[in-house]
Amino acid sequence: MGLKLYCFGESGNAYKAALTLTLCGLEWEPVFVDFFHGEARSPAFREINLMGEVPVLVGPDVKLTQSGTIQLWAAERTGKLLGDRAEALRWVFFDNHKVSSQAGALRFHMNFLDPKKREPAVIDWLKGRLASAYKVLEAQLERTPFLAGDEVTIGDTACCGYLFYPEPFGFDRAQWPAIDAWLSRIQALPGWKHPYDMMPGRPSDRAPA
Amino acid sequence: MGLKLYCFGESGNAYKAALTLTLCGLEWEPVFVDFFHGEARSPAFREINLMGEVPVLVGPDVKLTQSGTIQLWAAERTGKLLGDRAEALRWVFFDNHKVSSQAGALRFHMNFLDPKKREPAVIDWLKGRLASAYKVLEAQLERTPFLAGDEVTIGDTACCGYLFYPEPFGFDRAQWPAIDAWLSRIQALPGWKHPYDMMPGRPSDRAPA
Repeated sequence: MGLKLYCFGESGNAYKAALTLTLCGLEWEPVFVDFFHGEARSPAFREINLMGEVPVLVGPDVKLTQSGTIQLWAAERTGKLLGDRAEALRWVFFDNHKVSSQAGALRFHMNFLDPKKREPAVIDWLKGRLASAYKVLEAQLERTPFLAGDEVTIGDTACCGYLFYPEPFGFDRAQWPAIDAWLSRIQALPGWKHPYDMMPGRPSDRAPA
Repeated sequence: MGLKLYCFGESGNAYKAALTLTLCGLEWEPVFVDFFHGEARSPAFREINLMGEVPVLVGPDVKLTQSGTIQLWAAERTGKLLGDRAEALRWVFFDNHKVSSQAGALRFHMNFLDPKKREPAVIDWLKGRLASAYKVLEAQLERTPFLAGDEVTIGDTACCGYLFYPEPFGFDRAQWPAIDAWLSRIQALPGWKHPYDMMPGRPSDRAPA
């Protein structure tokens, strides 16, 4: 039995794990989790992950949840994407704290939440928080080609997790030249794929709300 | 020269690092960062940490930012608070993603932000997000005394980071019996101190807004 990754295409958090496994050269296969029909929060899925979230990685000798844990495991196991580990990890944590937690919520709110439940004040507040985070990424990427220095690390595969998605969430690559160039460098890495091509599930699979 | 931790009392993120260093038995001294007068986002501080955030740990052979990075370093260096590392780390990441990023923002919004700028919709939204996260903590702590099992780990010193603060942010220990008992177990650990007793700076030091 190989590595199985519980995931779905719309999840930037799952993409962080999927892209890391792929760039580390690990073989894996997806297990689709039907998030939009509540599967991630079902009792059966909570038995797999009490947190009710993807990604979950299951293999012969491993069961891991949280994208950062999976990323660190893959990097340490293969010796790839690790760079200076502390430098890489600080960007993984920055992503979890300041980028993905806000970007995932904002994209959901603006695109997948029932329009009647959308709150303009929440959208504006999240956009402001994210602009501060993008400024930090931009400032670092004006200095170094990848976040932790000259080479791609799990810090990059974390912070880019939501930034390739086409749905509007207030992020425009053209506004951030250093981020834009960095995303292009990531897209040029051998094996890179868009999240909707790497994992099953995308908005066009579902009937419009 | 020993370990210096850039911090301030109101920062739950800094507290996660301070409490971890202390429970690991490492000697450290605080360097006060005057967040409420903008020091964390000053050009001088950005030279120390581009992210404009505490905590930052500086020592003879180390300079680390992001609480999770500091926590992992302290645990690996001392062999304490590590438990099953992957289990501990998943709670550190859960904290960064789902607990502290929301709790820190909500507490700031409800207590330290200019009242004219407070948005009820944002407050309600953050309270809802946090209630989901507290449910996950409660469910795990009904099963095990600490988040990663029988022993305290950096997962605990992460997830508790904001939960000892007295300012209102919608968290009431009495509503969450398993979380309440767990916080009491943490408070009983040798060396535990409240954030305002462990780091310099507290609201009563400042003139009312």
